[in-house]
Amino acid sequence: MKLLILNGPNLNLLGRREPEVYGAATLADIEAELRAAFPEIEWTFAQHNGEGGLIDALHTADADGLDGVVFNPGGYAHTSVALRDAVASISVPVVEVHISNVHARDAFRHRLMIAPAAAGLVAGFGVTGYRLAVRYFVETGA
Amino acid sequence: MKLLILNGPNLNLLGRREPEVYGAATLADIEAELRAAFPEIEWTFAQHNGEGGLIDALHTADADGLDGVVFNPGGYAHTSVALRDAVASISVPVVEVHISNVHARDAFRHRLMIAPAAAGLVAGFGVTGYRLAVRYFVETGA
Amino acid sequence: MKLLILNGPNLNLLGRREPEVYGAATLADIEAELRAAFPEIEWTFAQHNGEGGLIDALHTADADGLDGVVFNPGGYAHTSVALRDAVASISVPVVEVHISNVHARDAFRHRLMIAPAAAGLVAGFGVTGYRLAVRYFVETGA
Amino acid sequence: MKLLILNGPNLNLLGRREPEVYGAATLADIEAELRAAFPEIEWTFAQHNGEGGLIDALHTADADGLDGVVFNPGGYAHTSVALRDAVASISVPVVEVHISNVHARDAFRHRLMIAPAAAGLVAGFGVTGYRLAVRYFVETGA
Amino acid sequence: MKLLILNGPNLNLLGRREPEVYGAATLADIEAELRAAFPEIEWTFAQHNGEGGLIDALHTADADGLDGVVFNPGGYAHTSVALRDAVASISVPVVEVHISNVHARDAFRHRLMIAPAAAGLVAGFGVTGYRLAVRYFVETGA
Amino acid sequence: MKLLILNGPNLNLLGRREPEVYGAATLADIEAELRAAFPEIEWTFAQHNGEGGLIDALHTADADGLDGVVFNPGGYAHTSVALRDAVASISVPVVEVHISNVHARDAFRHRLMIAPAAAGLVAGFGVTGYRLAVRYFVETGA
Amino acid sequence: MKLLILNGPNLNLLGRREPEVYGAATLADIEAELRAAFPEIEWTFAQHNGEGGLIDALHTADADGLDGVVFNPGGYAHTSVALRDAVASISVPVVEVHISNVHARDAFRHRLMIAPAAAGLVAGFGVTGYRLAVRYFVETGA
Amino acid sequence: MKLLILNGPNLNLLGRREPEVYGAATLADIEAELRAAFPEIEWTFAQHNGEGGLIDALHTADADGLDGVVFNPGGYAHTSVALRDAVASISVPVVEVHISNVHARDAFRHRLMIAPAAAGLVAGFGVTGYRLAVRYFVETGA
Amino acid sequence: MKLLILNGPNLNLLGRREPEVYGAATLADIEAELRAAFPEIEWTFAQHNGEGGLIDALHTADADGLDGVVFNPGGYAHTSVALRDAVASISVPVVEVHISNVHARDAFRHRLMIAPAAAGLVAGFGVTGYRLAVRYFVETGA
Amino acid sequence: MKLLILNGPNLNLLGRREPEVYGAATLADIEAELRAAFPEIEWTFAQHNGEGGLIDALHTADADGLDGVVFNPGGYAHTSVALRDAVASISVPVVEVHISNVHARDAFRHRLMIAPAAAGLVAGFGVTGYRLAVRYFVETGA
Amino acid sequence: MKLLILNGPNLNLLGRREPEVYGAATLADIEAELRAAFPEIEWTFAQHNGEGGLIDALHTADADGLDGVVFNPGGYAHTSVALRDAVASISVPVVEVHISNVHARDAFRHRLMIAPAAAGLVAGFGVTGYRLAVRYFVETGA
Amino acid sequence: MKLLILNGPNLNLLGRREPEVYGAATLADIEAELRAAFPEIEWTFAQHNGEGGLIDALHTADADGLDGVVFNPGGYAHTSVALRDAVASISVPVVEVHISNVHARDAFRHRLMIAPAAAGLVAGFGVTGYRLAVRYFVETGA
Repeated sequence: MKLLILNGPNLNLLGRREPEVYGAATLADIEAELRAAFPEIEWTFAQHNGEGGLIDALHTADADGLDGVVFNPGGYAHTSVALRDAVASISVPVVEVHISNVHARDAFRHRLMIAPAAAGLVAGFGVTGYRLAVRYFVETGA
Repeated sequence: MKLLILNGPNLNLLGRREPEVYGAATLADIEAELRAAFPEIEWTFAQHNGEGGLIDALHTADADGLDGVVFNPGGYAHTSVALRDAVASISVPVVEVHISNVHARDAFRHRLMIAPAAAGLVAGFGVTGYRLAVRYFVETGA
Repeated sequence: MKLLILNGPNLNLLGRREPEVYGAATLADIEAELRAAFPEIEWTFAQHNGEGGLIDALHTADADGLDGVVFNPGGYAHTSVALRDAVASISVPVVEVHISNVHARDAFRHRLMIAPAAAGLVAGFGVTGYRLAVRYFVETGA
Repeated sequence: MKLLILNGPNLNLLGRREPEVYGAATLADIEAELRAAFPEIEWTFAQHNGEGGLIDALHTADADGLDGVVFNPGGYAHTSVALRDAVASISVPVVEVHISNVHARDAFRHRLMIAPAAAGLVAGFGVTGYRLAVRYFVETGA
Repeated sequence: MKLLILNGPNLNLLGRREPEVYGAATLADIEAELRAAFPEIEWTFAQHNGEGGLIDALHTADADGLDGVVFNPGGYAHTSVALRDAVASISVPVVEVHISNVHARDAFRHRLMIAPAAAGLVAGFGVTGYRLAVRYFVETGA
Repeated sequence: MKLLILNGPNLNLLGRREPEVYGAATLADIEAELRAAFPEIEWTFAQHNGEGGLIDALHTADADGLDGVVFNPGGYAHTSVALRDAVASISVPVVEVHISNVHARDAFRHRLMIAPAAAGLVAGFGVTGYRLAVRYFVETGA
Repeated sequence: MKLLILNGPNLNLLGRREPEVYGAATLADIEAELRAAFPEIEWTFAQHNGEGGLIDALHTADADGLDGVVFNPGGYAHTSVALRDAVASISVPVVEVHISNVHARDAFRHRLMIAPAAAGLVAGFGVTGYRLAVRYFVETGA
Repeated sequence: MKLLILNGPNLNLLGRREPEVYGAATLADIEAELRAAFPEIEWTFAQHNGEGGLIDALHTADADGLDGVVFNPGGYAHTSVALRDAVASISVPVVEVHISNVHARDAFRHRLMIAPAAAGLVAGFGVTGYRLAVRYFVETGA
Repeated sequence: MKLLILNGPNLNLLGRREPEVYGAATLADIEAELRAAFPEIEWTFAQHNGEGGLIDALHTADADGLDGVVFNPGGYAHTSVALRDAVASISVPVVEVHISNVHARDAFRHRLMIAPAAAGLVAGFGVTGYRLAVRYFVETGA
Repeated sequence: MKLLILNGPNLNLLGRREPEVYGAATLADIEAELRAAFPEIEWTFAQHNGEGGLIDALHTADADGLDGVVFNPGGYAHTSVALRDAVASISVPVVEVHISNVHARDAFRHRLMIAPAAAGLVAGFGVTGYRLAVRYFVETGA
Repeated sequence: MKLLILNGPNLNLLGRREPEVYGAATLADIEAELRAAFPEIEWTFAQHNGEGGLIDALHTADADGLDGVVFNPGGYAHTSVALRDAVASISVPVVEVHISNVHARDAFRHRLMIAPAAAGLVAGFGVTGYRLAVRYFVETGA
Repeated sequence: MKLLILNGPNLNLLGRREPEVYGAATLADIEAELRAAFPEIEWTFAQHNGEGGLIDALHTADADGLDGVVFNPGGYAHTSVALRDAVASISVPVVEVHISNVHARDAFRHRLMIAPAAAGLVAGFGVTGYRLAVRYFVETGA
């Protein structure tokens, strides 16, 4: 099984950025933890701050025949029609992950523009959310 | 670890109700699958069509010292301040689960009234969502 | 033909409650009138003030193989996603009845949350509305 | 008893227009069916595509001392203040009929601008709705 | 003078539930305090988590000829048309009480759906609010 | 000076229609009163129930070189972009008149779609409003 | 006949303030013109920039038994509940005047908060509007 | 205990102004009643029609070390950010009182702009509300 | 190929009406230009100021087996459900044309009520838009 | 004549992406077809998934003195103020093209943020829309 | 250069009022600091709690030929059409200053009613904002 | 002191782009002017048209230990959650600058999505705004 863990804007700062909201783990920690927990998976990890780079990464995942994408779109989750269209345009299933409980934060974070095109949504579990999203692919083979 | 799987209105019809939306598994199937997958957990299963019964069940879970609740509030997810207050009133963590991708359905299903008080949200994975929610408790011991 | 006449919150007070809005007939009067007018129908009459009881009654009507439900959801008509889902979950057709002309009253009564799942809507005819709704079943055998 | 069956825009196409929404019966079929079912009634049938013609028809029904109007305002139902005022301006009671379940269609069809001035509303029963509306006049003599 | 103190969802947890918002007094404390302060009043105390139970209690208060109801509808205050209709349906005057200052909390708590049918509103005084509401009945004999 | 008094839908019923809102004077009374009060003016009087007829009348007033139009658009005042465009399309100045105080009635009557294209607005003075509007033309020669 | 011409905020600058919107006439010009045109009227003229002063002036007009008030509330027209209440609180009729066509300007100027309590509204005629408003009192003796 | 009873716009007309809404008691009656009922309190009574005067009065109450303010902001309750800030700026607790049930009146009266900064809210009890608000200070010593 | 060029309200004034918005060409100019540019097409040209006439024209185009309609609905574009239903009711494809860039004008012109039922939309090209719309039929034979 | 055909996010997938919405033609097909149909035009073709790349391309078209841009902004059409500003910032005219009928799809696709700055809009004609947009430049020399 | 520093409601409490929001400096401190920093400027300092007083001060600044006004309108910034009109009515340029970051506070503070008429806006810098605003006048001589 | 002047989309066109809105100075002019005015500051200047590049620049400013950022986000100011999160994610203070008075332009420019995370806002002073923002850092050492 080949999976892409795709992170959006500002997630490169994870661990240093507002730790009371996002926790102390870094992207590297998440990668290490996932590799250890799921050694059988063929991993790709990517992070982009721009919408264009994220769209490209989704297209590539599709072209490369990956089995799934775990996607944390960061702030683009609430505004990006282009990313929603990108997720709808490809055949590889995408699971959207949010570290924080977006529904408990600013009102503009309650609108999820990309989620309707996703296979499912996991939000509020901190970095554990990535692991739960991977579980979905592992357990269902989806 | 003691967990309550709490289901809201119309979920007693699961498997018969709009199977193109909710799938063919029944609540009994879900219970069997969870018992098999997590034999070490001490389970409680409940389903109520009324808001009052669900609030009572949440209060009881708290009073009984359970370790977690996996809660599918059904249609009340979008309207019930009383259930939101119930989740916020108790100290046992509650994970909200939706079988369907609520953000891809009617606009009134995009508002999640209870979720801000929950520990996290899992939506759109079909009945697999219950298992992912249980995983959260198992893996974090939360 | 087996029909259920199902009434929601506060309709047990019919005849005494705001008679300038709802008229002087009681639920018992309505029952008597319908039994007299349609002696060939096998009747069930029920009234519940709670959402849970109403959902249960709809489920039972479906399980019992009734031919139709005439349902006045009272104030839940404007807010209840759970009742809408209940009506959509069952295969027995449901006709929604309102005694008063809801569109001529408070703005929040203009939103009909359950009606999209109903077979049809009859509103504003006073208690005559129940008879018109029954007519629909009798004349179309729906 | 003298009744007017008044149909609004595009209903002259009934039977040919989007039959999956509006059914296969034509206005002529409806007229024939009503004449057969209620031979004692003195009928007038009219259809207009313009708001002005419909307002004129309502005024005439009032001037001619009709006992009731069964009015399907078509698309004007959702926008026309002028027709609402026309219905409120006359003393003959008007029952509004919709063939389709307007609350289950586009959001702009949920607003019923004329209905508050009507005696009652019948929606979603297909062309059977005309018969139910006539029943109201016949049974109550209103 | 016969009064009912009626409490809605989650108020059975009073004293344990979010004490920084609702204070440390329990429903039992409130009952004891009111009995001590107004020994001449014939008291009824009730609490229900479901909308149906609260509607029933209001109907019973009316049927029993009580002189007044002090009603804290909890989260239903912001959504329940059915409870608004229940208050409007009965002749016994109802005073709505909120422990917290609802207008200083979440925006959805600023909408008071039941209050327009109530005799008056008391909010933000903590549990002292119950006493002020009782004062209204005592001082005006309303 | 040549003026057109143009009345919209349902104003042909003036004097008979909801007299508590619109008063007892008829269009004929208004015409007589204006002819008597302003004998030097060359009058045209017209009334149409349809938007098309009103647009035609405005175009004709412009083509005929009239000096002004006093226009009561009735219910179209709140919805008609086509009439707003008609008023903006012609060079003859148009004064909008409303018999009732539209801002004190239904919320949808507070939106004045045509008024921004008009020279001015007179509302709430009953049929005296027509006279005030004529005064504007007489006193300013506009 | 005793009338008050009451002007609100910034109208003391009339003639100097945005003359392309409000014209070149000053308040003194308006006063002179009205005195000349209606020598039989007993005039009071007042202007206040504060809401309190305007409310006081309205109360005084009522206490002094005036026959009418011509009131240009300026910017308060769109926001002031207190002035609306003041107009509703007194028995002397008030006609609201606006120099500019408020419906053709910023969207927030389309809301007229005070107008529902006024006897009528005159807007968009420039300073001629004051004369038309006075005409209303003179011609109807209202 | 030193208390200020502070009344806002148009309340000087109390007893004469729309008595069907506000009752027949005047401010003088309220003052007399309160002095009689609570002879131990050191009273200040003030009324202002302007926002500025009310803000000054609140500042003075704070500077003078009063123990509480009972404040009926009249129409400013629904619009005044400045008064909200004034209440939040001072340390003396303020209880907001409304004579009428503001939630049962115009929609714009449902928004309470000042209340979030107040200690509590009493609405709908007629002039009895002032007494209940004073009770709050007396009973809690707040 | 048989095409109808159908123009809505006020377009009979084209060339004279607000030329800075709509240009100097008249409907006759457009007709001449189209006849010259596409001599092989069998043309029908129509213009109506009323909604009813436009609906009739669309129905006739359908009954006459035309191959396409180029429709400029003028101000009805933003409000008319009846015209939207008319376009949806017929099988002949309809292309909507606007001379001006409606999205760059008043906000109420951004809502296009008819366009969802049209085959396509051409806006902002001045009268060239008619030619582009015809091109669509010519080049695709649609 | 020098034209740029500029495509936005996900349009590189054209032909493979949701063909039931966007058709089977690829960008290469469109390029080939345009080159064949308009051999006299000097073409530039570009596609970018990021907003920045699209803004750069628009700036370059302007700096290079192109005669026109045919721009399909994809999902950015509904949200991008930056692209609207880019189109307004340059002097080369831009025609906006949408393959699908955006007004017939999700509500958020009805808002066209960039279109007000464009010379015109072509939507819903499938890939034929590009050809119609080019026609505009060819026929008007704009 | 002659400048007015004009402060609105509650700013007389600066230094004592919510110091965590507004800081510890008083108006006197600000005055002293500005006089020291810009000894060449001819200063006027004013503060008013009422809208009327602020409007008067702006008018006077204009009549006195001042070179600029630094205006902190406090809570009126979010609601006052009258102050917006006052700023637009005068020729002296006005810079709006807010001590706190209004966009980071309550949603109703995000609307700036006066700012569109101001020369510029400075917000969020604490009392340093006054100095920055003065700099604007000093450096540009505006 | 080390400062970054960061400009967003289309600001590379400054001086050529809509000079009646943005003035004639170029980014190079601004840089030259700032270097001359504040020779002691260690400057970095950057401009990006894409959101990603701007986020990267903000992250780098933080990683490089700069003392402040003066940021003109251009059109992203009104929509970008990602940039808001970037500003909130870093510890270097950011001052937001707008050349034009955004509150006096299109309604969608009144929403400032990034500003709540900024240290302060300067808008409407033309390119002088950059200098005022730098002053903030220089004078407060913030």
